[in-house]
Amino acid sequence: MKQYNVAILGATGEVGREMMKILAERNFPIKTLKLLASERSAGKVMMFRDTPLTVEAASEASFEGMDIVLGAASADLARTLAPAIKAAGAVFVDNSSAFRGCPDVPLIVPEINGEDAKWHNGIISNPNCSTIITLMAVKGIHKLSPIRAMVASTYQAVSGAGAGGPIELAEQTKALSEGAPVSCKVFPYQIAQNLIPQIGSFLEDGYTTEEMKMQVEGRKIMHKDDLRVTCTCVRVPVVRSHSIAVSVYTEKPLTVEAVKEQIAKEAGCRLVDDPQSKVYPMPLDTSDQDIVFVGRIRPDIAFENGITLWCCGDQVRKGAATNAVQIAELLIEA
Amino acid sequence: MKQYNVAILGATGEVGREMMKILAERNFPIKTLKLLASERSAGKVMMFRDTPLTVEAASEASFEGMDIVLGAASADLARTLAPAIKAAGAVFVDNSSAFRGCPDVPLIVPEINGEDAKWHNGIISNPNCSTIITLMAVKGIHKLSPIRAMVASTYQAVSGAGAGGPIELAEQTKALSEGAPVSCKVFPYQIAQNLIPQIGSFLEDGYTTEEMKMQVEGRKIMHKDDLRVTCTCVRVPVVRSHSIAVSVYTEKPLTVEAVKEQIAKEAGCRLVDDPQSKVYPMPLDTSDQDIVFVGRIRPDIAFENGITLWCCGDQVRKGAATNAVQIAELLIEA
Repeated sequence: MKQYNVAILGATGEVGREMMKILAERNFPIKTLKLLASERSAGKVMMFRDTPLTVEAASEASFEGMDIVLGAASADLARTLAPAIKAAGAVFVDNSSAFRGCPDVPLIVPEINGEDAKWHNGIISNPNCSTIITLMAVKGIHKLSPIRAMVASTYQAVSGAGAGGPIELAEQTKALSEGAPVSCKVFPYQIAQNLIPQIGSFLEDGYTTEEMKMQVEGRKIMHKDDLRVTCTCVRVPVVRSHSIAVSVYTEKPLTVEAVKEQIAKEAGCRLVDDPQSKVYPMPLDTSDQDIVFVGRIRPDIAFENGITLWCCGDQVRKGAATNAVQIAELLIEA
Repeated sequence: MKQYNVAILGATGEVGREMMKILAERNFPIKTLKLLASERSAGKVMMFRDTPLTVEAASEASFEGMDIVLGAASADLARTLAPAIKAAGAVFVDNSSAFRGCPDVPLIVPEINGEDAKWHNGIISNPNCSTIITLMAVKGIHKLSPIRAMVASTYQAVSGAGAGGPIELAEQTKALSEGAPVSCKVFPYQIAQNLIPQIGSFLEDGYTTEEMKMQVEGRKIMHKDDLRVTCTCVRVPVVRSHSIAVSVYTEKPLTVEAVKEQIAKEAGCRLVDDPQSKVYPMPLDTSDQDIVFVGRIRPDIAFENGITLWCCGDQVRKGAATNAVQIAELLIEA
């Protein structure tokens, strides 16, 4: 079997570290693995399987000989280094938002539009975490009848803000229990015992950048240019796994039974829906897993042809690192 | 000024204690205050202003001479004792769900349908907490153009489950930080660092009793029998104040500016909506207050004539105790 030279750009961050773990877990056919990060992290040693690897400072010279570069860095760094990655002949699977909107860059959730990997021009974008989890939950519905619109409210874990998020939640929780002052570095306000209805920055129309991703990225992934999505994104004091309450409106009416049956068959989904026995998805149950849990499936009351449901998924894994590695797998299969 | 004999049924619970506090705060004209609770709490001494009062065991004989009985007990106890309260000639302002659906019982949010107090027959029901907070936030919109439908997702604090909720959250948080096992008594699953998408019990159609209240009670309070509300209720690890993300669909299109202007004028509401300066409602800011904070007001994208917003309010105060005392104030003004 052919083996590949793979680099992780941003290897020391939360998503980068998870990518290493998932490459190992999924036995990705690696010839060499190069760990790239900022100057500050250069020299740091990290373990990949049983091999110690030294982190190198990322530069335009880093990509020579690479086949695949998994990007877990900022959008700015992705933009700066993309030309060098392409010039080196590697494919850049980028988790940042830098290229998601570019017409010549596929945006892929492998279980939904894996075939889009065929037309890449050196860059493939990994979608937003909440978007991946929500679309994974509703993709079965879209097969039964095309989705016209969605109204979604997210309950997003602090680890979505990077490794500093869980540390800040833990520090604030400790401070509260000791009656000490709470300090905020990662989040603009106290997140322990609170909710912050802002993720990303605000656009002119009052939506955040994060909220608009579900419509903008959803249209591209689902090949549905007229999809309409209203989304409210809220940070909650949960360590890991995002949850989403979503009402999905389809072209034709669907029965709850048909929807449950379809979701139970969908790759990457687990139907967790026996409310009378208190069985429904919860973030604690989905953390450190790749499967999106879907439950609370019921008819929507507000509008015709609606199904309302609740889903949870690990946003560091399926919402980021696992999805990126799955995209890389599409490249080596091709 | 006339003074009244008032009883609190369930005085030792979270809402009952808050009712005492609010009667004092609002200088309710009290002649005598009688504290009623279960046999177990009888004999307990509680302070009302500077006066120690002894809790009595509630029975059918408790209500003689009372003018107003504020109910903060279970629906079962409310049903059992309501005939005795009515027979004694008192008006029963009941916070339980026992009578909310009865055609001859008004269900009142004073700022919305205070005039309904006029047709009571001895019982007035206090609405569900999330319903009060959501309707307070959207009542200004309903004045501009009647609301046809809403899609709501709640983020409900642990204190909504009674005084045991915050204790359980604190105990679980402590256990997690010590690596000790987490025990669940009040909630069916761990709530610390988790979300539980169940409040109330499940109905046949997959909704919970709590979720259906927003439509059923909303119709009665807003005098709008064809209001359609899809609601998902979720318990979150927040101590106090419920938050709701809601999309509101009106008969006519409204501008965001008109909606903001109206909400800023609404009694009991505060417009907290300057997202570019990171100003939006958060549960920490609304706790121990009567005002419902409303912000993140923006056009809905999913459907025509929609406005999406985010609101927070203290469910023990405006969502329960304060609203009940306000209803009692309507009775003495009449």
